[in-house]
Amino acid sequence: MRRFVIGRGRNFLNRSHQQNLLSSSSSHCQSRFLSSTSVIDSPSSSSMAPTSSPAITVDSLNPKVLKCEYAVRGEIVSIAQRLQQELQTNPGSHSFDEILYCNIGNPQSLGQQPITFFREVLALCDHPSILDRSETQGLFSADSIERAWQILDQIPGRATGAYSHSQGIKGLRDTIAAGIEARDGFPADPNDIFLTDGASPAVHMMMQLLIRSENDGILCPIPQYPLYSASIALHGGTLVPYYLDEATGWGLETSEVKKQLEAAKAKGITVRALVVINPGNPTGQVLAEENQRAIVDFCKKEGLVLLADEVYQENVYVPEKKFHSFKKVSRSMGYGEKDISLVSFQSVSKGYHGECGKRGGYMEVTGFSPEVREQIYKVASVNLCSNISGQILASLVMSPPKVGDESYESYCAERDGILSSLARRAKTLEDAFNSLEGITCNKAEGAMYLFPRIQLPEKAIKAAEAEKTVPDAFYCRRLLNATGIVLVPGSGFGQVPGTWHFRCTILPQEDKIPAIVTRLTDFHKSFMDKFRN
Amino acid sequence: MRRFVIGRGRNFLNRSHQQNLLSSSSSHCQSRFLSSTSVIDSPSSSSMAPTSSPAITVDSLNPKVLKCEYAVRGEIVSIAQRLQQELQTNPGSHSFDEILYCNIGNPQSLGQQPITFFREVLALCDHPSILDRSETQGLFSADSIERAWQILDQIPGRATGAYSHSQGIKGLRDTIAAGIEARDGFPADPNDIFLTDGASPAVHMMMQLLIRSENDGILCPIPQYPLYSASIALHGGTLVPYYLDEATGWGLETSEVKKQLEAAKAKGITVRALVVINPGNPTGQVLAEENQRAIVDFCKKEGLVLLADEVYQENVYVPEKKFHSFKKVSRSMGYGEKDISLVSFQSVSKGYHGECGKRGGYMEVTGFSPEVREQIYKVASVNLCSNISGQILASLVMSPPKVGDESYESYCAERDGILSSLARRAKTLEDAFNSLEGITCNKAEGAMYLFPRIQLPEKAIKAAEAEKTVPDAFYCRRLLNATGIVLVPGSGFGQVPGTWHFRCTILPQEDKIPAIVTRLTDFHKSFMDKFRN
Repeated sequence: MRRFVIGRGRNFLNRSHQQNLLSSSSSHCQSRFLSSTSVIDSPSSSSMAPTSSPAITVDSLNPKVLKCEYAVRGEIVSIAQRLQQELQTNPGSHSFDEILYCNIGNPQSLGQQPITFFREVLALCDHPSILDRSETQGLFSADSIERAWQILDQIPGRATGAYSHSQGIKGLRDTIAAGIEARDGFPADPNDIFLTDGASPAVHMMMQLLIRSENDGILCPIPQYPLYSASIALHGGTLVPYYLDEATGWGLETSEVKKQLEAAKAKGITVRALVVINPGNPTGQVLAEENQRAIVDFCKKEGLVLLADEVYQENVYVPEKKFHSFKKVSRSMGYGEKDISLVSFQSVSKGYHGECGKRGGYMEVTGFSPEVREQIYKVASVNLCSNISGQILASLVMSPPKVGDESYESYCAERDGILSSLARRAKTLEDAFNSLEGITCNKAEGAMYLFPRIQLPEKAIKAAEAEKTVPDAFYCRRLLNATGIVLVPGSGFGQVPGTWHFRCTILPQEDKIPAIVTRLTDFHKSFMDKFRN
Repeated sequence: MRRFVIGRGRNFLNRSHQQNLLSSSSSHCQSRFLSSTSVIDSPSSSSMAPTSSPAITVDSLNPKVLKCEYAVRGEIVSIAQRLQQELQTNPGSHSFDEILYCNIGNPQSLGQQPITFFREVLALCDHPSILDRSETQGLFSADSIERAWQILDQIPGRATGAYSHSQGIKGLRDTIAAGIEARDGFPADPNDIFLTDGASPAVHMMMQLLIRSENDGILCPIPQYPLYSASIALHGGTLVPYYLDEATGWGLETSEVKKQLEAAKAKGITVRALVVINPGNPTGQVLAEENQRAIVDFCKKEGLVLLADEVYQENVYVPEKKFHSFKKVSRSMGYGEKDISLVSFQSVSKGYHGECGKRGGYMEVTGFSPEVREQIYKVASVNLCSNISGQILASLVMSPPKVGDESYESYCAERDGILSSLARRAKTLEDAFNSLEGITCNKAEGAMYLFPRIQLPEKAIKAAEAEKTVPDAFYCRRLLNATGIVLVPGSGFGQVPGTWHFRCTILPQEDKIPAIVTRLTDFHKSFMDKFRN
């Protein structure tokens, strides 16, 4: 089995020995903690002898928390934030005048404008008392006013400030189910929809349900979006890696998945689910339908829950590829509720809308028994419900303006403007990376990222080792300090050992792209000149 | 030690034997699951033999999830939802014409109107492009427009659709910290604030950090808000109960806490934190400052993290009581960062605003080392950030209109109208309960609940046993079926064994209260007539 590199990650299958070490160090921490409290405890119960230190130290925290890593907001971003402050307080202190955040899929932070219709409806639902006012007709489109009324009528008492049903407002789930039906051509049930604050809490919820101990494994692609490794670590399970094949455009081979599944079983791991991210994050590929069928059959045959991260379903940039949901694919194969357990995650944060700050999303949960569904509902109910604005936005994303609506044309223009610009940016950056010495970059078919491979010279690797840094982080840190460009090192996502990558979003506005390409190119040349073998 | 009754809850200290049983049944489940997958595994890897059942059964779910209970949205509420559907599809099918939800602190679901200024600002921040339009001046108050500009200027790029800093937007945290300072008269640091989607995720986050195994205990009041028992169960810890004294108006005695702490230690439990809910949920008491000082000293002496649930800080209804934050109390005792680890939870869902659906809230985290803070930040960053509307609302709640602002008078009128009405409703319901045979009800000093004690006749208890139901749930179910009134049985919160209670919110609108009192009274009389000894 190939070894796996992901920063200091310790929660991976092939490091199970370390896991044992960790649990013994955990009980070591506990006994230390106990002895320190027993010192505190020695005075008589009525005395108020002050203690000299706070109750909690890092060593006494939950070791699962310590194990968890999340590179997208990791060390490089902390350095970037410091540099940004330095630029603010001391302009001219660096050779660049702004920080260019290419680390995170956060389009509106880089100047992407929200879709007008969506924001009109949200504003009206936030303050419904203006709906009847004549000034409102002048400020808002007619269909946004109509949609706001429709949505309010779906909410008991029109109370947008009330907790909703724990799965989300029923009328909004009806709308979302209809949107899924229109997308897939197969029925969708509003009772299968769980609205969540973005996709992340939905992923956590499924991990919480499925993971009982470190002997439970979740198959994840490598490279992966580190939410998965973080969530598996927090819930105390084992990430079972399967490798995407960079040589075939980050292809997903079921033979590789099968091999890793068998290896995990041989180590006593019960593999419970398979995560697929399509379009891929950080890798940007779009799966072929044939490939998806093989994955569905594999999960069905092996009794695995298929966790389908489909949050980039609107982000496809090449005419030869099309997004197909795993639900559609499995239904088109004739598989129904009884054949496969499938969870599809969707988010308002991605797509052409990029409404990250609204924290809206849902999961569509099919192929589970009523008893299991009841448990999912219970976990959802402990947090009462997801935020109503996010719920409303999720319904809008799955049911945007239609032909004939007043907003239809402007909506289409906004949407298509963003998507075609993203496609141009992806191509420009892909070409730029491919023009650099020692860098190869697969086609950006979808999502919001490129994941180029960099052939680091021996001298650079040695210099990184001398600084006790992972080589790709060494490169990214130098790039940041020289140019203000923030990338995430490939080691934050996982990669074949001995290979190095970084993730770069395609999100800076188009007028910034030439400067980014120039800065990247200049930096890379000087880096290679310094470290070339 | 008194035994503890809370439904089928199995994650409590005095049931640790059952906990061992559970872990062994968990491994039993696991081996069953393994053998079933190994059957699936027998065909050759290329064959596509279909399996007959979905991958996941209840028995193979995370046992911590199975253990978790959340009565506020439990069985009684499911029955209520069914009855409501029956009333819709078949009006006249029951002896009542509507369901009266007194089960949950969800004011706007029962007709409470949102605070206008808050909603104006939210709407403007959702759709900032109308801020410059002349019609907007006619629709929105001048100070809401000004506040929206202020807030937008605090957000990088004015992007309300972007992920924020994982602790929340810095400018909003500045505002919240200033609000805390104004409330307490002691400094507050914006870097101590973590904005969250309501208070629940903040509580989960702290439990996740503190709980390493079932040997870690969290001291919780009994009765408690079941978020705590649910969260402790989900994170695999042990709830160490301390009893509030009903006879002294749900008083919190540190001698009782000390006794339970010692009992827990004797069982090998490392107690890590003490939860205090003030004003109390479900019990409605407001702690005296002297009492709070004793609790602070206790936590300091015992090295416990003080988890202060202060979400009802605006909900105090009696002139003789005043809310004091634990931060203020500890600082007024001369204790600083190095003396006590304290987390204060606040929410936009409660208070006079009751904006449950917005999912806004924060925790103020003081007295932890930078290394521990870094871990809290890391866990927050895995979910990227809380929703921006909730963040904005949290800042508004901590910084409402001031004297001289255009909205100030209408804001005060709305706020005071709601709070004085809540006080009247609390008193009316309290008196009504106290007038019923066998029911005694402590004073509703604060929060949104009454927790009356009911002396159930032997015959009723026997009838409940015959129906395999907890007696207080038996009462609540009969009440619901007869009147449409939804209460939560005391067993969902915990109570001294052999005593029975229920929680009733004070939230139905005032014009509904007389009908509720009549229906309750009539039902109770007939219930007692039927079951009186």
